[in-house]
Amino acid sequence: MSGSNFNPESDAFETRPTFYVGQHDSTRFAALTDDQYSQVLNSGFRFVTAPVTTRHFFDRVVDLHRYYLKERDEWTQKQSLTASQQANPSLPGPAVPTLTDKDTSIYPSHYIGNLAVYFSPWIDLCSPDPHISSLSRQVLNLEAAYANFCGARTIVIPGPRQDDSSRGIAQYARAIREALNVANRANIIIHMPMYREPGLDEKSETLSSIFSPRDGPEPEPKKEVDLFGAWDSWNTIRSTCNYSMRLFVALRVPRRVPEKTLQERWFAEPMHYLTIGRDVFQPNKAGHPSLSRHHQDLINRYMRLRSVPWLLLCDVGPRPEELGALPDQAASEFPSLAEASQALREGRRPHMPAMNAHVGYMKYLERQQPAFSAMEAPALTSFQDWLQPPLQPLADNLESATYEVFEGDPVKYDQYEKAITEAMIEWKELKKPTSTATAANPDSPELVVTVAGAGRGPLVTRALRAAESTGTPIQIWALEKNQDAYVYLLRKNKVEWGNKVTLVKTDMRGWEGPRLRGSEDVIGKVDILVTELLGSFGDNELSPECLDGIQNHLARPHGISIPHSYTAHLSPISTPRLFADISSRVVGDPNAFETPWVVRLFAIDYVAQKVPDHPRFQQAWEFVHPVAVLRADEFAAVHGKAAKYVTGGVGSMSGASGTNEHNARHCHLTFVCPTRGVIHGLAGFFESVLYASQKGTGKEPVEISILPDQIDRKSKDMVSWFPIFFPLKKPLYFPQDTELEVSMWRQTDDTKVWYEWLVEVYAWVGPSTRIKVGSSDLHTSRKVACLM
Amino acid sequence: MSGSNFNPESDAFETRPTFYVGQHDSTRFAALTDDQYSQVLNSGFRFVTAPVTTRHFFDRVVDLHRYYLKERDEWTQKQSLTASQQANPSLPGPAVPTLTDKDTSIYPSHYIGNLAVYFSPWIDLCSPDPHISSLSRQVLNLEAAYANFCGARTIVIPGPRQDDSSRGIAQYARAIREALNVANRANIIIHMPMYREPGLDEKSETLSSIFSPRDGPEPEPKKEVDLFGAWDSWNTIRSTCNYSMRLFVALRVPRRVPEKTLQERWFAEPMHYLTIGRDVFQPNKAGHPSLSRHHQDLINRYMRLRSVPWLLLCDVGPRPEELGALPDQAASEFPSLAEASQALREGRRPHMPAMNAHVGYMKYLERQQPAFSAMEAPALTSFQDWLQPPLQPLADNLESATYEVFEGDPVKYDQYEKAITEAMIEWKELKKPTSTATAANPDSPELVVTVAGAGRGPLVTRALRAAESTGTPIQIWALEKNQDAYVYLLRKNKVEWGNKVTLVKTDMRGWEGPRLRGSEDVIGKVDILVTELLGSFGDNELSPECLDGIQNHLARPHGISIPHSYTAHLSPISTPRLFADISSRVVGDPNAFETPWVVRLFAIDYVAQKVPDHPRFQQAWEFVHPVAVLRADEFAAVHGKAAKYVTGGVGSMSGASGTNEHNARHCHLTFVCPTRGVIHGLAGFFESVLYASQKGTGKEPVEISILPDQIDRKSKDMVSWFPIFFPLKKPLYFPQDTELEVSMWRQTDDTKVWYEWLVEVYAWVGPSTRIKVGSSDLHTSRKVACLM
Repeated sequence: MSGSNFNPESDAFETRPTFYVGQHDSTRFAALTDDQYSQVLNSGFRFVTAPVTTRHFFDRVVDLHRYYLKERDEWTQKQSLTASQQANPSLPGPAVPTLTDKDTSIYPSHYIGNLAVYFSPWIDLCSPDPHISSLSRQVLNLEAAYANFCGARTIVIPGPRQDDSSRGIAQYARAIREALNVANRANIIIHMPMYREPGLDEKSETLSSIFSPRDGPEPEPKKEVDLFGAWDSWNTIRSTCNYSMRLFVALRVPRRVPEKTLQERWFAEPMHYLTIGRDVFQPNKAGHPSLSRHHQDLINRYMRLRSVPWLLLCDVGPRPEELGALPDQAASEFPSLAEASQALREGRRPHMPAMNAHVGYMKYLERQQPAFSAMEAPALTSFQDWLQPPLQPLADNLESATYEVFEGDPVKYDQYEKAITEAMIEWKELKKPTSTATAANPDSPELVVTVAGAGRGPLVTRALRAAESTGTPIQIWALEKNQDAYVYLLRKNKVEWGNKVTLVKTDMRGWEGPRLRGSEDVIGKVDILVTELLGSFGDNELSPECLDGIQNHLARPHGISIPHSYTAHLSPISTPRLFADISSRVVGDPNAFETPWVVRLFAIDYVAQKVPDHPRFQQAWEFVHPVAVLRADEFAAVHGKAAKYVTGGVGSMSGASGTNEHNARHCHLTFVCPTRGVIHGLAGFFESVLYASQKGTGKEPVEISILPDQIDRKSKDMVSWFPIFFPLKKPLYFPQDTELEVSMWRQTDDTKVWYEWLVEVYAWVGPSTRIKVGSSDLHTSRKVACLM
Repeated sequence: MSGSNFNPESDAFETRPTFYVGQHDSTRFAALTDDQYSQVLNSGFRFVTAPVTTRHFFDRVVDLHRYYLKERDEWTQKQSLTASQQANPSLPGPAVPTLTDKDTSIYPSHYIGNLAVYFSPWIDLCSPDPHISSLSRQVLNLEAAYANFCGARTIVIPGPRQDDSSRGIAQYARAIREALNVANRANIIIHMPMYREPGLDEKSETLSSIFSPRDGPEPEPKKEVDLFGAWDSWNTIRSTCNYSMRLFVALRVPRRVPEKTLQERWFAEPMHYLTIGRDVFQPNKAGHPSLSRHHQDLINRYMRLRSVPWLLLCDVGPRPEELGALPDQAASEFPSLAEASQALREGRRPHMPAMNAHVGYMKYLERQQPAFSAMEAPALTSFQDWLQPPLQPLADNLESATYEVFEGDPVKYDQYEKAITEAMIEWKELKKPTSTATAANPDSPELVVTVAGAGRGPLVTRALRAAESTGTPIQIWALEKNQDAYVYLLRKNKVEWGNKVTLVKTDMRGWEGPRLRGSEDVIGKVDILVTELLGSFGDNELSPECLDGIQNHLARPHGISIPHSYTAHLSPISTPRLFADISSRVVGDPNAFETPWVVRLFAIDYVAQKVPDHPRFQQAWEFVHPVAVLRADEFAAVHGKAAKYVTGGVGSMSGASGTNEHNARHCHLTFVCPTRGVIHGLAGFFESVLYASQKGTGKEPVEISILPDQIDRKSKDMVSWFPIFFPLKKPLYFPQDTELEVSMWRQTDDTKVWYEWLVEVYAWVGPSTRIKVGSSDLHTSRKVACLM
């Protein structure tokens, strides 16, 4: 590593995500004492977990239930009850008594907010035995209430003992929902495995193992591992809890790293901890703990989340007996908590025990991470999964600062310049006549270039540069409707462009056309029309409608529109965080679920498989400019004899006369999902061909793209556009071997444009049988439509 | 038939649903003239359909599209477009011009409200050809706008041409939603087949058949008829239209009547017309048209709906040529519309043409229907599918009239009397000691009977009658918390009961217990406790909690509670009308979808199959009285050594100390659905054993039941309870071979009781593979809980 990389003042200073490593000990039955806490901090950990209740409490609950069962048997015999009464599961079970000071070792304190309070793992909320599940719920609520009283802000609850196929998961989920009620200020974190590794089921002592031991031998382990079972359980839990913003997952890293699709699934979930057990580590050649390359990659990937998960190492020491063995009088040999903190603040190691080997290894991994890339700069990272309401492109006037942000993307404007340059070169090569040609000057070489919607002029600069570099004589017009930007353009024309540009303050749809130099009484035509009206979904900022309004000034047949065409693309995604975010907005914004949001999608899961016939990203529709066949009203003008057919009619939408009907679109796409999952909406992207060579085959078109699988090839590091997100009101669950059928419309009446979307789920249940299993609502953004 | 049946003043007068028969002619391209209308009325019809547009319009649209295609081809060749542009489906299609007076034959008039306006059957909204589907949408909106302008209130639109498997159904559904917008005051009725009979697809001329004829030979007809395909399409349409209250179905009766499950499915849908084509009729021996027994049963069944569907006979004459052949001058031979109406009003037949044979047959069927039964009395029928908000049983005091309604059900009180009678007889037979026995009188034969919640006293009367008939000496108490009903009881005691009853104005939970005759300073015990606290779901009006509060006064071990026990039962149902109704209430009542409604379920479909292991109606849980094991606090008092365990703890619910925990319940039920469908909620019922013989086997218990498959056997014609309905916020669709897993909870904290419910859908996709395909939200009535 070069020295400059360690200079925080240097631009080249490399930064990486920070590892925040904590300690959890599953055999610990009491919170650490101050001294023990110091020891653990000194061994390199930054935080620890604390069990909310003690062994004493566990014993009491077990004792209570045992006693109750005995009493009930005696009572029942004495009563000579009917068979129905004896079998009646409604016989009241015991109430768990409130805690005493022997039952817990945590108390209100100023540092409790730093503790992760770990709930009793011996309860079984899923138990089919109504008494055990009732006891378990009572224990859970008792612990939740007490932790909340003490001021705990982070509660970890062991996940359900079985996967979703078990009938108890609804019981478990319902209990968590109540715990969120009881502990009404804490975050609740469910400790889930990534998937259930065979032979790794917990063997610890639980109410179920004590009172409802399995009859007969252990069941045969299933041959096939249900990779998505644990995720499915989690999905049920958080759905039952209405995607609470206070509910997170602590994800147990498995011994064997699973396939990428499962890693990506969890990547999209609200992850608070990554937990790593002792058995996940392998000794390296020197006998030190280490993790496989696959594990490292997995951790590195998760560390790129905006909210990095903390790392919780489980059962990697120091063991409670090591800490507990410490005699009271020996405590003074260890630095006190205050001393240790002081030492840490001063950047020196406390004088005491050596760093825990596992922590040491994690610190090594921290340094080994790839540094943040340009696209991971903090300014960009802050936009991750952050919902931006869409623009009203024709109604809103932008501020200068906004233009400046747009202009800050060199990639986009480089591509535009390249497109204009190629168009100019080919114009000459193909000997196309220019529109400035007149009877007096039939071979005028001057191209008429118009930048419509010039803003602060970046495309004008590029067009002038292209003309200069190709030696093309041009007459150039720049149109801008924003009166304030127009002032800026006037100044720029004097200062930078040498007054070469004819500036017009107008909405491009109302422009009269160019009055050519030397024949100002005649309205001429435009040879090259340059616009930048594209939105995240291509046409969503009304580029088609705006270009309709100006394309009659384009010279025919040779006139060129840059962009030449653009396409909209879709992919269904799972994004629990955005769903929760939008849900929280509905009260203030009833259209939140029918609004296409602009958002830098990051912690999401593309659920669709990449297969040749049904790729992950599919094209919805295309717009090509100029429109090849004229609009209906022009059609009438050109073809007088057809006029009787086109004197205005009715559109597809209420109240419309159909004048914008040709800009309506519809698509029906099929996405393939091999594994079960849930989607929360559709991610939208665009691509655009700015200029396609007219010389025939062979030449690559000049393109820009924000498609995740194309952007690096077509317009790497272009940051002007984030994707668009079309949400669903309700998460849509789908089983394995599913096809998601997406219907999408671009709807329009005479005055506005909006989108509608609908997703249907079909599952393959045999080689030739496909059944419908569900459907979303039909969503429409009509109420937040773009006004024309 | 006896004469009295024809006397409308007689109680025995039999009434039947009325057939309202209309005429539709699929070959008609213009509305009837006045004279033609009269002829049709004279032939027995009560209404007719009218096409909104004429053949002239059809020809114009076909001509337009043909012309457009030709022009486009020429234009495209001239432009030497790129391949991408040629293939671009975005080339604008033609706009359908507005109507002229040649295009329609309907106009605003005072009688248009009586016409069923039939929309053009030649459009194809599902067409994969974007131009044809666009033309079709335009035609639809044009017709909808014009019909709405004219004042039409009933619009019939031909259903989609294919079933749901087709990709176009979303397009069709979206177009109907827009038509509802355009015709914003009319009812829109979709003409659907019950199922698609093989070989019966329409062969008529459509835009698709003209412009997109199928290449090659007709496809092989499918071997298996998809019985539920048409219903599925309808479900997609009305879901896309958000269950609009203005959207109905006109159901085409098939030639072959399908299985009962499909009939029941349609029975639950908002049905406006039953349409019967000429080919459904068969000539009888005399050559007259007739319908099969199966068809008759189907029609009779649908005629029991509160809103009876009208009958629309299709293409059964008089044919347009018969009417059209009528020369203008001949019109006078027919009675005018006014004359005909006059004749009808006067109850005589107009002098003119004979009744249409098909109408005549329908009138015959009308008379052949079974008469209304007692349970179909208008007073009861008016409650069909009518949502009643639930009672707050402990907070609300009832009015006398309400008590009177309850008392009007002899079946219930007969069963109570029978139960009390049997209990008294067995008390003697089994030589059980009474609680009036004292040292002075160890063999006192007097039974202590208490009616708790006596209301206006019907159970007191029955208890006195039972004592009388069995010769049982009793001391009887009647408790009532409603101070106004108490006054009524005081008077009744004097007037009717001979002051035999000790009346106490008290909430039963606060009663001190009976002070026995002759030893008033001692609180005695109750031998027989009689209550009527049951709700539609058994325990939903807090019977368990109320009985808890009084059962410590029951003599042990012999004391009897009548009712002895009760069970709650569930079944998932499809009920689009209730869903639409509740949806319309959500604005004013945000808890509408989490409220258990009392409702006389009628137009519903029980989707679950009747199979032995998983019956259609399944028991959720049971309550038995007196509670066999004491409540937790009593448990402590009785068992001093256990006291340390039961000094009050925490319940399963936030803020509860668990005192009512023993009345919480949970169930998990699996219902089997062989065919696909949709559910809107759970129907709830109860059964109760009022008294179960204690003499051992052999004797039937005395029961009441509102379970549809038990009520006739256990308590026929009992009308005191309607079922309860637990709605789902979103209709839950399920595929064929599904298991619906219902989780239900009776939740309680220390102060209130509520229910929670959740439905999950699992589909069998192989002999041993079951996959989850969907789930409802977890619903909770906590916000409208019953207060204890």
